[in-house]
Amino acid sequence: MSIEDLGNVVGDADMADPRFEFDRATQIFREQSLDSSVAYSAKVHPGWDIMGNANGGYLLALVGHALSDATGRPDCITVTAHYLAPCPAGDARIVVTPVRSGRRFATATASLFLLTDTGEKEIIRVLATLGDLANDPGGPSHMDEHPTFPPRGLLPFSQCVGMNESASSNFAYIHGRLGTRANPGDIHFRDGAKSGQALIRGWFAFNDQRPIDTRALLLASDAFPPSVFNLDLPTAWVPTIEMTVHTRAIPAPGPVSCIFSTRFVQNGLLEEDGEMWDSKGVLVAQSRQLALAPRQ
Amino acid sequence: MSIEDLGNVVGDADMADPRFEFDRATQIFREQSLDSSVAYSAKVHPGWDIMGNANGGYLLALVGHALSDATGRPDCITVTAHYLAPCPAGDARIVVTPVRSGRRFATATASLFLLTDTGEKEIIRVLATLGDLANDPGGPSHMDEHPTFPPRGLLPFSQCVGMNESASSNFAYIHGRLGTRANPGDIHFRDGAKSGQALIRGWFAFNDQRPIDTRALLLASDAFPPSVFNLDLPTAWVPTIEMTVHTRAIPAPGPVSCIFSTRFVQNGLLEEDGEMWDSKGVLVAQSRQLALAPRQ
Repeated sequence: MSIEDLGNVVGDADMADPRFEFDRATQIFREQSLDSSVAYSAKVHPGWDIMGNANGGYLLALVGHALSDATGRPDCITVTAHYLAPCPAGDARIVVTPVRSGRRFATATASLFLLTDTGEKEIIRVLATLGDLANDPGGPSHMDEHPTFPPRGLLPFSQCVGMNESASSNFAYIHGRLGTRANPGDIHFRDGAKSGQALIRGWFAFNDQRPIDTRALLLASDAFPPSVFNLDLPTAWVPTIEMTVHTRAIPAPGPVSCIFSTRFVQNGLLEEDGEMWDSKGVLVAQSRQLALAPRQ
Repeated sequence: MSIEDLGNVVGDADMADPRFEFDRATQIFREQSLDSSVAYSAKVHPGWDIMGNANGGYLLALVGHALSDATGRPDCITVTAHYLAPCPAGDARIVVTPVRSGRRFATATASLFLLTDTGEKEIIRVLATLGDLANDPGGPSHMDEHPTFPPRGLLPFSQCVGMNESASSNFAYIHGRLGTRANPGDIHFRDGAKSGQALIRGWFAFNDQRPIDTRALLLASDAFPPSVFNLDLPTAWVPTIEMTVHTRAIPAPGPVSCIFSTRFVQNGLLEEDGEMWDSKGVLVAQSRQLALAPRQ
């Protein structure tokens, strides 16, 4: 796609560069506004999926783009998505409804609907408060409360294993888009050797070197395999019920180091917590999702 | 109030017992249904506030009651509230809009509006997925992943200090309703002796011995002072931007042991994480809120 093809693509204060796959896959086209809502057409692209279902972080980034455009704020400071149905690739519509617009923050809801032969199907419902981290008035920090960078035991980028270099790339097509790498010991479950610890550490990056902004952090929050694949549980689908991401800073250039872990698998439900750090050792995002434990 | 006065109070599958203060303070009255939404009248009661503003957990419990009634599901499995404005006591309206109703879970949004002289003011916007933990089909557990009960260093209930036994009860009226107790060393900040660790451990209970159900866990998630009061930051208001609570099990009888901590105070924002455990050592809830760091 050339720049010229992008005539009616929404102009962003933040990044939307058609040279990069992620930006093409999260394009939105503003349509007419209905009452107080803003509608966008979009496309759930193939290749950002696991077994044919779009990745939850990718869908959240797509909706995040619409939220940023509708509110005029580049960063989802806190965003929660409830996942209502699996989502194959296809045409979609996103509707954003502003709730409140303040000086520092704006709150809005959004829905992504997949357009099917039989009508629209709601895929995710989102509630978010957005801001502008680059121009934020700021406030106190307590930097000595950063005891966990780099994530303990995370090997350097070059010593980690590309997530696209394995059998898993046969079903997790999203890894073909990403330059994501993981600690070797944390993904030996792919060869049947579970570590026994619900922990996956790695680096998030794009294959095409796209810089990582806060929108990409929404993708990163769900871009690694479930850490419970390292426990004595089936290696099967772990459907996300809800995911909340806080973006805490705009990442410095370079891959983002990540740690994902699950502490409580209980009654068929689990939480997975994520932390993401930039190359300067700044916490850039925290995520938590509630998901169904994998079953045979 | 007698049982007879409760003629048009919504009947619950779950608890709503007018002998208890919390149940009276979270009463809802179903009004007409508009389109696909369900409206309730309610009252934000005095005495559940800090300096005149209703506690965020109390407001969430009130909205949670309406969510449960409208969806027919007793438990907010995962609920996120965005706090839009401070809320004095007064008459309120809650509107619940169902999103999806499935076999195991139902998703809905809700808003609480305070009725003021000049009209309605939206106070919180909520997105939740509800279920029925007592009748849940269940699934795998991985119980040896519970390394943190009881919360490390938490003293027995009898050796903790009642949160209502101090100067703080002069401005945090909510503690008059609660039988909540805290580890003495974690609340010495009230006497000017900050521990240096953003950590508060304690026990959640009601003064009037009301049993703790999942609705009460929404209150418990925001019922302790901010753990950053133990850091070298001002002891001032810490406004919640967003709070998400996962209720993971129905508590066994007895006080609930709690641990709240903040790891990252950065650029004027902080997260506070909570864990709540019942008397049998079962994780009953996890909470995380994003809040503004306190300022002079």
